Amino acid sequence: MESLPKEETLQLRLKHYGPSCKLFFKENPIKIVRAEGQYMYDEQGKQYLDCINNVAHVGHCHPTVVKACTEQMSVLNTNSRFLHDNLVTYAKRLTATLPDKLSVCYFVNSGSEANDLALRLARTYTGNYDVVVMDNGYHGHVSSLIDISPYKFNHTGGEGQKPFVHLVPVPDVYRGLYRENVPEVGKKYAMEAKHVIDGARKRGRKIAAFISESLQSCGGQIIMPQGYLREVYKHVREAGAVCIADEVQVGFGRVGSHFWAFQAVDDEACPDIVSMGKPIGNGHPMSAVVTTPEIAEAFGATGMEYFNTFGGNPVSCAIGLAVMDVIDKEDLMGNAGRVGNYLMEGFRKLGEKHDIIGDVRGLGFFIGVDLVKDKTSREPATAEAQHVIYRMKERYILLSTDGPHRNVLKLKGPMCFTTEDADRVLVNLDQVLTEVVAASSNNTLEHLPEHTMFTKDVHSKRSGPIFTGSHTLSHDAVFGNIKRPSDNDSDNDDEAKRQKTWAGVD
Amino acid sequence: MESLPKEETLQLRLKHYGPSCKLFFKENPIKIVRAEGQYMYDEQGKQYLDCINNVAHVGHCHPTVVKACTEQMSVLNTNSRFLHDNLVTYAKRLTATLPDKLSVCYFVNSGSEANDLALRLARTYTGNYDVVVMDNGYHGHVSSLIDISPYKFNHTGGEGQKPFVHLVPVPDVYRGLYRENVPEVGKKYAMEAKHVIDGARKRGRKIAAFISESLQSCGGQIIMPQGYLREVYKHVREAGAVCIADEVQVGFGRVGSHFWAFQAVDDEACPDIVSMGKPIGNGHPMSAVVTTPEIAEAFGATGMEYFNTFGGNPVSCAIGLAVMDVIDKEDLMGNAGRVGNYLMEGFRKLGEKHDIIGDVRGLGFFIGVDLVKDKTSREPATAEAQHVIYRMKERYILLSTDGPHRNVLKLKGPMCFTTEDADRVLVNLDQVLTEVVAASSNNTLEHLPEHTMFTKDVHSKRSGPIFTGSHTLSHDAVFGNIKRPSDNDSDNDDEAKRQKTWAGVD
Repeated sequence: MESLPKEETLQLRLKHYGPSCKLFFKENPIKIVRAEGQYMYDEQGKQYLDCINNVAHVGHCHPTVVKACTEQMSVLNTNSRFLHDNLVTYAKRLTATLPDKLSVCYFVNSGSEANDLALRLARTYTGNYDVVVMDNGYHGHVSSLIDISPYKFNHTGGEGQKPFVHLVPVPDVYRGLYRENVPEVGKKYAMEAKHVIDGARKRGRKIAAFISESLQSCGGQIIMPQGYLREVYKHVREAGAVCIADEVQVGFGRVGSHFWAFQAVDDEACPDIVSMGKPIGNGHPMSAVVTTPEIAEAFGATGMEYFNTFGGNPVSCAIGLAVMDVIDKEDLMGNAGRVGNYLMEGFRKLGEKHDIIGDVRGLGFFIGVDLVKDKTSREPATAEAQHVIYRMKERYILLSTDGPHRNVLKLKGPMCFTTEDADRVLVNLDQVLTEVVAASSNNTLEHLPEHTMFTKDVHSKRSGPIFTGSHTLSHDAVFGNIKRPSDNDSDNDDEAKRQKTWAGVD
Repeated sequence: MESLPKEETLQLRLKHYGPSCKLFFKENPIKIVRAEGQYMYDEQGKQYLDCINNVAHVGHCHPTVVKACTEQMSVLNTNSRFLHDNLVTYAKRLTATLPDKLSVCYFVNSGSEANDLALRLARTYTGNYDVVVMDNGYHGHVSSLIDISPYKFNHTGGEGQKPFVHLVPVPDVYRGLYRENVPEVGKKYAMEAKHVIDGARKRGRKIAAFISESLQSCGGQIIMPQGYLREVYKHVREAGAVCIADEVQVGFGRVGSHFWAFQAVDDEACPDIVSMGKPIGNGHPMSAVVTTPEIAEAFGATGMEYFNTFGGNPVSCAIGLAVMDVIDKEDLMGNAGRVGNYLMEGFRKLGEKHDIIGDVRGLGFFIGVDLVKDKTSREPATAEAQHVIYRMKERYILLSTDGPHRNVLKLKGPMCFTTEDADRVLVNLDQVLTEVVAASSNNTLEHLPEHTMFTKDVHSKRSGPIFTGSHTLSHDAVFGNIKRPSDNDSDNDDEAKRQKTWAGVD
C-alpha cells in the first residue's frame, strides 16, 4: 500500500501540491496507509485512534458503503438528466428525516457547493443579497463563502468584513456576553441578533438569509442555548429573509438525540434551507441542499437551469443510501449519544482533578473540552492545548483544537467509537494533562514552533469573544464592532478601531 | 436494477428534486439503468448510443476504473492532511502532461470548484479583481462563476453583465466578425480582445485574469483559429493579468492530437492556470487546478489555508490514475483522433448532399455540425436542429445541440467510440436530415413544445454573434456592447441598448 518512502512522498508533495493545503503536524506529518472503523494505520503499522474525522462517519472503509459503491459503479454512473431510481429513492429517504416542509433536494458535490447553492436559493427567493452570519462561523472555501465566513475573512489572509455581511455574536454561554447563569440566555442572545438585523435594515440593507452552523465547530465546539434559534429565526423572517441551517459538519445523527443538530439545539426551530456535507457519503465527494417547495419553485421560476455534472449521480446516491442504512442498522445515532455522554462524564471527572479543564460541552459525539489557564478568568490555555494535541499524537491518539483561541480540544470522530476507545482517550489525556500542566507551571514547556502544530489560521486580527471572569460584560467590551440599531455608521468598521477593541485577546 | 415503475420515478422526482435541475426530453425523459462503454440501456433493455457524455471519458463503467475505486476505498479514504502516495503520484503524473512551468496541483471536487479556485489564485497573485471572459463562455454553477459566464448571466434568469466582467468576442470563423477567409484571422480576433482589455484599463479597471474554455462547447463547439491564443495571452499579460485555460469539458486527450486542447488550438500558447473537471474521474466527482510555483506561492503566502474536505483523497487519486492508465493503454487519444476524423469526413460528405449542414468543425472527438437554413446567409436552423435531436433519440442515438442559436449538433461522447458507431450516426443522420428538411420545406414539421426538447436556456436576451452572409460586418453590428478603447462609458451597458443592438437575432 506504500509505494514510496515517506520522505519521498513528502518531497513530491512539496513540489507538486499547493502549499496552502496544510498537513497535520507539518514538521512530522503522519503518513496513513489504511484505516478501518475508528482506527488509522501508518506506514509502519502503528494504529492511531481517530477522534477527529467526522467524514468517515460510519467508520473508515465501511464494507456496506464500499459494496454499494462498487455495485452501482459497475452498472451505471451518469448525470441527473436521465431518470434514475437511486436519485429519487435517496431524495425521499433524506427528506423523510426532516420536517415535512423541507421536501425538495438538490444533490451537489461538497459542503461548499451546498452552501453556495443555499445562498443562491435564498437570494433568488427573497430578491435580497445581504447575509447575517454568526461570528467565527465557517461555511466553505469557494469565494462566495469565504465572504460570509468570519473564521476566514477575519483571519490571516482574509479581506475583512464586506458591507453585505452582518455579524451576530456567538451564543457562547461559557465565554460570551451572556453566560450560563443568565436567565433566558437564549432569548438574550437572540435579541443581540435582532439588534444587528434591525441596524442593518435601518441602514437600508436588504437581508436574504441568516446562516449558521447548527453547532459551531471551527468556532470552538459551541452549543447554542435552547430557545435561541427559534427567536433568531423569528427575527430573521420578520426581516423578509430566510433561515439556513448549515449541517455540513454536524448532521446525520452525530448529536445522538436527533438526526439533525438544529433539532437538538432547539426543538421548535425549523430552517427554510438545510445544507449537508462531510459525513453524507462517508468520504465520497457528495453533498445536498434541502429546501421548501416554495423556495425551489422560485429558484426554478427564473428559468435558469441548475446543472451539476456529478451531483445526484447513481453512485453517489447509492453511497448516500448505504450510509443511512448503516446508521440505522448499527444504531450509530444511539451509540453517539451513549459514548458521547460517557466521554463527557469522563472529561468532567478529569475536570475535577485538572484545573486546566474549564468547560466540557457537547451533544452526542460532538464534544469540546475547553482548556483554561484559570477557571475563574477562563483565560484560554492556548499553548497548553497545542502541547496536549502533540503529546496525544505521540500516544497515537488524533485530536485537534479549534475555536478562536485554539484552546478547545475537539472530538468528532467516526460514530462507531466505543467506550473502550473513550477510556483510551481519557486515560491518556489524564496523563498528558498532568505532564503539560507541570511543564507549564515549571516554565519547561518546550517551544513548539507553530509549524509543528495543527495548522489552522491562528493569528487572527480579531479572535472572538474576550475571555474574562465577569459574567455581565458591557456590550461594547465584548462585541466591539457589532452595531446596535442606534449606530449609524457602516458595517465595515475600520480595522484600527476593531483591532483596538480586541487588543490583548491573543 | 429498476426498483420503481418509470412513472413513479418521475413523480418522485417532481416531488423531491429541484425543478431547476432539468431532464433531457422533459415530456418523455429517458430512464437509464445500465451502461457500458459508449452504450446506455433503458429500463426496457433498449440500447442507446451515447454521443454526448464527455464525463464517461474512457467508457461507461470501465472495469479498470471500478477496480481502482473499490481497491482503494476498501483500504483508505481520508483527507489530504495526511501524507499519501496516491496524491503525490497523481500530481506528478498529471503535471507531466503539461508544460514544465505548470507543476503545482490543487485537487478539488468539480469543475466549478476548480474554476472558483482558479479565480482566487489569479486574484491573489495579481492583486486585481476584474475578469476578461469570452462571449458565450460557461465556467460553472457557483455564484462567482455565473458572474463570469455569459452563457448564464446573459440568458434567462441571469443578472446581466457586472462591471468587473469584460467580454471579448468569440473567435468564431464561421459566424463571427472575421470569417474563415480573412488573413491572419487569429491575430485580428486577438486585437479585438486587446481593444476590450485596453478599454477596461483606460477606465481604471484592474484585470486579474483572462479565462476561456480551450474549445467553447456550450458556445457552439467553436475552434479558435491558430495564433489567436498566444496573442491574447500576450495582451493579457501586458495588462498584469494571468491566463486561465478552462479544460473542464475538453481536456484529457479528447482533441486527439494533444492531451490538452489549448495545445491543439495554439502550439505556442501556455496558460498560467489550467482547470480540469468532467472526464478526469470518468464520473467520479473530482477535479483539479494546476498552476505555476509562483502563483501557488503567492496564494500560500497570504497565510490563509485552503482545505478541501474531499479533494485529493486517496480514492479520487486512485481513480484519476486509473483513467490516465486507460487512456494510455487503450490509446484513446489516438482513437479520438481517428474516429473523430472519420466522423468529420462523414459529416462533410453528408454536407454535400444536405444543404442544411452549413459547417462541420472539430478536433478529435469534439465535433460540431452547424445546421443552417441557408448556406450563404448561415441563418441557424434552430427548429430543425431540435427535430433532428428528437428523431435521433427515437432511433436510440443520443445527440445534443448547443451554441447561442441551439443549432449546432454536438458530439463529445466516450472516447472508445468506434467507426461502426460513427457509421450508425452517419446513416441515421442522413435519413433524419432528409425527413426533417422535407417536413420543414412542406411546413409539416410538427410543433415541438419547448419542454420536449433539450432544456438548455435558449431564450436569450442576447444570443451571440449575429448570423449573416457578409464576411466583413461592422464592429458595432456584431459586437454591440463590446467597447473599443475610445469608448468611455461603463462596461455595464443598459439592457435596453443591448437588446436593441441585438434585436432580431433570436
